[in-house]
Amino acid sequence: MLGGYMGKILRVDLSTQEILTETFQEEILRKYLGGSGLGAKILLEETTEKTDPLGPDNILIFMTGPLVGTRALNFGRHQVVTKSPLTGIYGEANSGGTWGVHLKRAGYDGLIISGRSSKPVYLWLNNDIVQIRDASSIWGKDTFETDLLLKRELGSDIVTCSIGQAGENLVKIAAIMNDGIHGRAAARCGVGAVMGSKKLKAIAVKGDLKPYTVNEKALKKSIRNWSPKIRENTLEMNKFGTSEMMLRVEASGDLPIKNWTGGIFSTAEKISGQTISKKLYKKRYYCAQCVIGCGKTIQIKDGPYAGLSGAAPEYETLGMLGANCLIDDVEAISKANELCNRYGLDTISTGAVIAFAMEAYERGLINKNDTAGFELHWGNNEALLGMIHKITYRENIGELLGEGVRIAAKKLGGLAQEFALHVKGLELPGHDPRAKYSNALAYATSPRGACHMNAFSYEFENGLAMPELGYPETLDRFETEGKAEFVAKFQNLMAIFDSLIGCKFLIFGLKDETIKTTVKWLNFVTGWDITPEELLETGERIVTLKRLYNIRCGKFRNDDTLPPRILNEIRGAGGAAEGLPHLGKMLNEYYRYRGWNEFGIPKKETLERLALL
Amino acid sequence: MLGGYMGKILRVDLSTQEILTETFQEEILRKYLGGSGLGAKILLEETTEKTDPLGPDNILIFMTGPLVGTRALNFGRHQVVTKSPLTGIYGEANSGGTWGVHLKRAGYDGLIISGRSSKPVYLWLNNDIVQIRDASSIWGKDTFETDLLLKRELGSDIVTCSIGQAGENLVKIAAIMNDGIHGRAAARCGVGAVMGSKKLKAIAVKGDLKPYTVNEKALKKSIRNWSPKIRENTLEMNKFGTSEMMLRVEASGDLPIKNWTGGIFSTAEKISGQTISKKLYKKRYYCAQCVIGCGKTIQIKDGPYAGLSGAAPEYETLGMLGANCLIDDVEAISKANELCNRYGLDTISTGAVIAFAMEAYERGLINKNDTAGFELHWGNNEALLGMIHKITYRENIGELLGEGVRIAAKKLGGLAQEFALHVKGLELPGHDPRAKYSNALAYATSPRGACHMNAFSYEFENGLAMPELGYPETLDRFETEGKAEFVAKFQNLMAIFDSLIGCKFLIFGLKDETIKTTVKWLNFVTGWDITPEELLETGERIVTLKRLYNIRCGKFRNDDTLPPRILNEIRGAGGAAEGLPHLGKMLNEYYRYRGWNEFGIPKKETLERLALL
Repeated sequence: MLGGYMGKILRVDLSTQEILTETFQEEILRKYLGGSGLGAKILLEETTEKTDPLGPDNILIFMTGPLVGTRALNFGRHQVVTKSPLTGIYGEANSGGTWGVHLKRAGYDGLIISGRSSKPVYLWLNNDIVQIRDASSIWGKDTFETDLLLKRELGSDIVTCSIGQAGENLVKIAAIMNDGIHGRAAARCGVGAVMGSKKLKAIAVKGDLKPYTVNEKALKKSIRNWSPKIRENTLEMNKFGTSEMMLRVEASGDLPIKNWTGGIFSTAEKISGQTISKKLYKKRYYCAQCVIGCGKTIQIKDGPYAGLSGAAPEYETLGMLGANCLIDDVEAISKANELCNRYGLDTISTGAVIAFAMEAYERGLINKNDTAGFELHWGNNEALLGMIHKITYRENIGELLGEGVRIAAKKLGGLAQEFALHVKGLELPGHDPRAKYSNALAYATSPRGACHMNAFSYEFENGLAMPELGYPETLDRFETEGKAEFVAKFQNLMAIFDSLIGCKFLIFGLKDETIKTTVKWLNFVTGWDITPEELLETGERIVTLKRLYNIRCGKFRNDDTLPPRILNEIRGAGGAAEGLPHLGKMLNEYYRYRGWNEFGIPKKETLERLALL
Repeated sequence: MLGGYMGKILRVDLSTQEILTETFQEEILRKYLGGSGLGAKILLEETTEKTDPLGPDNILIFMTGPLVGTRALNFGRHQVVTKSPLTGIYGEANSGGTWGVHLKRAGYDGLIISGRSSKPVYLWLNNDIVQIRDASSIWGKDTFETDLLLKRELGSDIVTCSIGQAGENLVKIAAIMNDGIHGRAAARCGVGAVMGSKKLKAIAVKGDLKPYTVNEKALKKSIRNWSPKIRENTLEMNKFGTSEMMLRVEASGDLPIKNWTGGIFSTAEKISGQTISKKLYKKRYYCAQCVIGCGKTIQIKDGPYAGLSGAAPEYETLGMLGANCLIDDVEAISKANELCNRYGLDTISTGAVIAFAMEAYERGLINKNDTAGFELHWGNNEALLGMIHKITYRENIGELLGEGVRIAAKKLGGLAQEFALHVKGLELPGHDPRAKYSNALAYATSPRGACHMNAFSYEFENGLAMPELGYPETLDRFETEGKAEFVAKFQNLMAIFDSLIGCKFLIFGLKDETIKTTVKWLNFVTGWDITPEELLETGERIVTLKRLYNIRCGKFRNDDTLPPRILNEIRGAGGAAEGLPHLGKMLNEYYRYRGWNEFGIPKKETLERLALL
């Protein structure tokens, strides 16, 4: 048996109801690992530039990776890969929780959904039992209800992923949620709409198998050694969650404020993890295999949102639904977060489109007739909650907003396209490239459009160092020189995390031994003899593979850009008051470093070197 | 009588054959001067964002200015203003020669053509005689033939402007030529296609009036003083024409080479003014009121182009039809120039679309089937000449190329848009912003799209100084800081030249006293008491007015950009090997300096200050 792998990919065609399993050979697995690596390879082979993302020809891939389901700490996530209906290009989104581990334990490294069901269905996977089941009783329910109803039907020990009403309604910023009220989400790129287009409401999983680890003893020993160290290195995250960084981020000018126009959010403290912990904290939440525990659950006891009990909003959610809409009421944001989780919406894109709508409202491009009476003023909690509902049900201006800012702006016309912040159609997440220049390049070149996790480099021009990649000291965040190589290297490493597939916060835990330890764990599990060099080259291969997908979709250098607001507009206040990245210079160096030509197309020798020809 | 003005604008409607004259009041004249200032005001009032540039609702404005027809040196040009069919926004193009002066002498400050004739016509203006005449015998003729035939009909002392076959065929890069074989051209923005759309073949003019100069004696004295000084200061231009700068330009990395990819053109010497002068020189050509004499006529005695006799190719022509297509055969370029002049094509845009086509051919996006058998290799003279013909007659790939690179690239699809170099649809002229950073901002913000004459600032980061604008020393061409104000000030000044309307080479002649002298001459002629401050504010008003036109067309900050090749691609060789301008930073400062908001829209207080509200 191949270490780390169950060896099987499950294929379910919802048009024909055909169910197949396929086994990938070791050579392919070593070359693409799993997660988004293997997912991208499959997507490239099985869809084309003509594939309608919401048509039956698109495929929806759920992938685990070799370390998922093993003892390897924090490698318990799953990756969703598909052609994005929001961007029309390569799409991916990953999620924590426990669903991925259960998929693996059911015996599958991955699951490929093709076709389209004629009526709502859900999948039930329990080891060798694979059933396409009628979902008429759960269609129309939110993801929390869906989880409960499926548990009532199949047992409380199942784990589900599902779409809410947003995905059902083909809202382009819909997510695929998992683990019920814990609100874990594969959120970006509108993957929920793809699931909705296939009339697939949910996937319930229960697994009893255990992936084989070749060198179980050595892995166990390493885990025992690292476990307390990782905890110690991530104490603040454990205490306050991702939003522990809120004040730091705000102070550095990295927080999106008022649709990316503000430099200072003076009440940031009100939406910080520290405040949430003090006011609303209930308990910690750990994803599968996790020792960091950045997840939090909260409870609201008084006020208009009394009774709310569930996942705390993450930093991204607080930034996008909060600061970017000038909202500092943490309870309202928590409610908005809960609504997004129930309806199955990407909180990043949702915050982005609502901030966009608020600016459009302020500028008179839309009015109360469009908003069903909501006054879309900055900081209006009620409008925020109302819009989430409208987006989900495609009502009034919500119909347009649910298409994402690119399409919404195009349809609104006039000035709207001037303040629609996206890259390749994907809304900017909550870190401002004007505060950390590497992020300009990372957003411009990320395969799925503006993404803060594809390089994750901004943490390393902001205090952290990464000697294993050749950065013994943190970089100057306002420097342009050298950032191209820096971003490329981090993208390669992050592609590994997205393929194995693990939690990127491990970097904070493993610190200077991140790559070394990851390689070790991978070798313990698989029995391979991978070196750090091979691993990083694998990352490069995966980045390049995704690039090839987008090139086939007609995306070249012209699309590797940023919204003018980020390229041209200084904010004049805050921790990055004068910041404006010189994207062109970084991009030029980046293409050279990557061995891509002047249009951003990988050269033949690059493809040869990466065994992609 | 108002000094400097005949006081009349002639209006000819070709649909109704209505002929009217209109008199503008002094207040308006002082506020907008004439040329592109007054033209822009009229265009703004008489067309809308919905006006089809090639429809009868578009107007074609020919303007002189207060100094045209007076003794004022080098102020003998005319300006064409219209809504551009190439760009869909504000369009202008100006020309030297003697046509403008004759229009003025016929009694008209300007001429506005509206409507559309049902059959080909030409206009005959002889003082009060204004006739719309049948042009069936000259329709289909080139501009040289047209000039000859009209002279045969009306007398050898008339001056004509006309379109060639390109304008007749509505080619979007068609020019309006004047002064017959001297090949003077109002070339850019496809103004020739607008004339063609109105079925107006030519405008023949003969004038016997003389514009009144209030202080004739003082003007005469100043001219007598300046005339030899200007000559002395522009001796090289007088000797070698605009192409005297070829070697200097090439050495600084400012020359467009191989569709903007090359840094070195090692055979630049072969297409320099010095070489032309040595090999082909016949005699000098002076526009009306000119003492510089940069115009040259040439004669080719041997070889395949033997017999050619006419205008020498200008620097821009040599750069765009030559270096940018890797052609260094000066006789072939001279022949191409003659063809463009006869057919009535903008040599800048023609060179640009052919270089684009050569790159498309090299990359396999088009092949011999598209090119009617021409091998569109870099440096292929025959292909160059063949394509000019094909563009004119809308045959094969020429049909597409005649739409300009923006449309051609969009229709070709794939990679084509990655190497289509234009701003707002207007092809880049022959100066590379990577070599002189102010030009990046100038191209991005010029009202008509990529234009080297709207700021003309690159000469002042390249050796020249302009103390009157606050630049006692030349600027560092690779510096970004301060370039915003620099460009804005030069744009304001150039808007004056485009309105009065004069030759911008006067700056080389008048040097440190350019503004002072211009103001003096203007006051001598008009009797006004304009100060340099008022004049520059007038320039600012005119720039802002054109901006308002484009804003009404839906062009905002998003459109103030440059092609990725200029923003991202270093050339790695030559005098600006590593140059890459940081456009975003300059743009930000520029909007602030101009009192425009973050989207590039003039603020209310700015419009109030400029009396534009």
